[in-house]
Amino acid sequence: MSTKNQTNQIIAEAKLQALAKRAFQSLGMNEKDTDDLVRILMLADLFGLSTHGLSRIESYGDRLRIGGINAKPNIQIERLAPAMIGVDGDNGVGPVVGIRALNAAIEAAKEFGIAVAFARGSNHFGPISPYSLIAAEQGFASIIGSNATTTIAPWGGSDARLGNSPLGFGVPNPNGTPFLLDMAMSVVARAKIRNAFKRGEQIPNTWGTDAKGNPTTDPKAALDGFLLPIGGHKGYGLALMVDLFAGLLSNAGYLTHIKSWQDAPDEPQNLGHFFILIDTKRLGSSEWLSERMVDFAKILTDSPPADADKPVIVPGMIELAKLEKQRKHGIEMSSETLDLLRHYAGE
Amino acid sequence: MSTKNQTNQIIAEAKLQALAKRAFQSLGMNEKDTDDLVRILMLADLFGLSTHGLSRIESYGDRLRIGGINAKPNIQIERLAPAMIGVDGDNGVGPVVGIRALNAAIEAAKEFGIAVAFARGSNHFGPISPYSLIAAEQGFASIIGSNATTTIAPWGGSDARLGNSPLGFGVPNPNGTPFLLDMAMSVVARAKIRNAFKRGEQIPNTWGTDAKGNPTTDPKAALDGFLLPIGGHKGYGLALMVDLFAGLLSNAGYLTHIKSWQDAPDEPQNLGHFFILIDTKRLGSSEWLSERMVDFAKILTDSPPADADKPVIVPGMIELAKLEKQRKHGIEMSSETLDLLRHYAGE
Repeated sequence: MSTKNQTNQIIAEAKLQALAKRAFQSLGMNEKDTDDLVRILMLADLFGLSTHGLSRIESYGDRLRIGGINAKPNIQIERLAPAMIGVDGDNGVGPVVGIRALNAAIEAAKEFGIAVAFARGSNHFGPISPYSLIAAEQGFASIIGSNATTTIAPWGGSDARLGNSPLGFGVPNPNGTPFLLDMAMSVVARAKIRNAFKRGEQIPNTWGTDAKGNPTTDPKAALDGFLLPIGGHKGYGLALMVDLFAGLLSNAGYLTHIKSWQDAPDEPQNLGHFFILIDTKRLGSSEWLSERMVDFAKILTDSPPADADKPVIVPGMIELAKLEKQRKHGIEMSSETLDLLRHYAGE
Repeated sequence: MSTKNQTNQIIAEAKLQALAKRAFQSLGMNEKDTDDLVRILMLADLFGLSTHGLSRIESYGDRLRIGGINAKPNIQIERLAPAMIGVDGDNGVGPVVGIRALNAAIEAAKEFGIAVAFARGSNHFGPISPYSLIAAEQGFASIIGSNATTTIAPWGGSDARLGNSPLGFGVPNPNGTPFLLDMAMSVVARAKIRNAFKRGEQIPNTWGTDAKGNPTTDPKAALDGFLLPIGGHKGYGLALMVDLFAGLLSNAGYLTHIKSWQDAPDEPQNLGHFFILIDTKRLGSSEWLSERMVDFAKILTDSPPADADKPVIVPGMIELAKLEKQRKHGIEMSSETLDLLRHYAGE
């Protein structure tokens, strides 16, 4: 892909959805799986998280074409205990595996109050906030995590041995906007460094190190090196815990057992995810929850801002506002991504 | 308490345990509750987490004496759904409420694979790692959190409206040491600033701000101000999510509804906790888990250290090594804490 002359275009949600579906179906996916995949990636774009949205057609498409990802997975769902589900993704596209695991966990949580799904044999599953939103809209609080390609060194170590594993939380608000937190353990996402590289820009030296472990302002050097975690040993510890739950306990790969899709695009990654779902309707009425959620947000946003031009925000507020705006006025997409979608759609 | 001439003494575990039990029983607690409380606080001391160990007899004792904490709580355990438990702590000492909630969640997780206990009407429950260890020793992975007195400002705000809510994870290793992570969302714990103040020392300006939101090196000013979270908006978001699960969903207090035990020692705090327990025996054999856990740790500790004198460590390693050493050779305790325990024990 050329990195020059990149511009953004506004496209209506329905039009983008139809285009994206044609593109992924042309890559061999069936209609149901394509619907699930496009739902997650489009929510990412609606949230403004374009690095984790339909732009992923680039890597997903490459790998689907050469068989690195299974376009027609036979996903197996096993009940390991009444409220515990094991999902074998059969190397399907990550969001397809993710949606199946999420839905299975929601169904079990309806029955038992809480449930967990552990998924293995998966791939990059997009951002977490779309799953948290889907759960929250049905009244479920969620804790969701995934492991990832190794990009972070152990705290005090000097080579990349753990992934920048994302962790997300969601809490529903029956008559308002839910709280959604979707965070990786690095100071910034690797995609942000990749974008700086594509744009030919330098990066702050707090984002990552070069291959020898020295902080760098060169995005190319940082892409060859590894990311730095938030809060030092705390972010390191959190990233490990996410990998333990998402990868080790799920019987997927973990740490350096995860192959990079960039180094080995034709091989299965065996990523893992976990989805913990809690049915808030068992805790109290929707009026009870709604009243508390509104009060909770108000206590925070009532704090006098340190900078008068920047009112206090709560997690998910920016993404949900963007979603509302883009649903109404169209979604901002890079021409590069639209061109690639049209290319695969045969237009 | 005088802060001068503070020295440490080594005391055998059994002797300390007997002393601590006499001290708390003299404060009106029954034998069973005292056993639970001393178990958690002594594990904190064994781990080397003295700020969260038996030194808490100071604040717990003050509040038990004036009725701010209920010495004889009637703790209610309610099954809200098959795998979801609600615990009303009746304003008991935190670790007593915590152990009851932990045990109830473990019992339900044995049956359903996963379970959650939401506790309300509680108080400071010690550090999280003792609970995670107790769970891990029985084969349970855990995610545990508690809310806390407000010491952190909303991100971009200028007054303390959220607690430095701790979050902990544990993953068992059937034939080795578990992984334990116990972290608060601030760069450091408030107790660390309090200790610097007691010792008359300055603090780094990254630990907290004064009452107007300006970073400070004066521990007294920081105690009057608020703590700074790790990773900026990420640590802010995590602290909120812990409070949403531990406080809001549990029907306890949250954010500014939590009263400070220092400002109002005679009033119930209504703190909340959550305990999510996962039975790893449903996921695979103990050989399977053990092999993966040993491999996981080895991948990390095999990373060449950036500083040759500081080998790479994994979460919980330092605390568990300290526990092993102190079980054998005695526990290092401050004379101040021992004096206070002896005072309450009538010695």
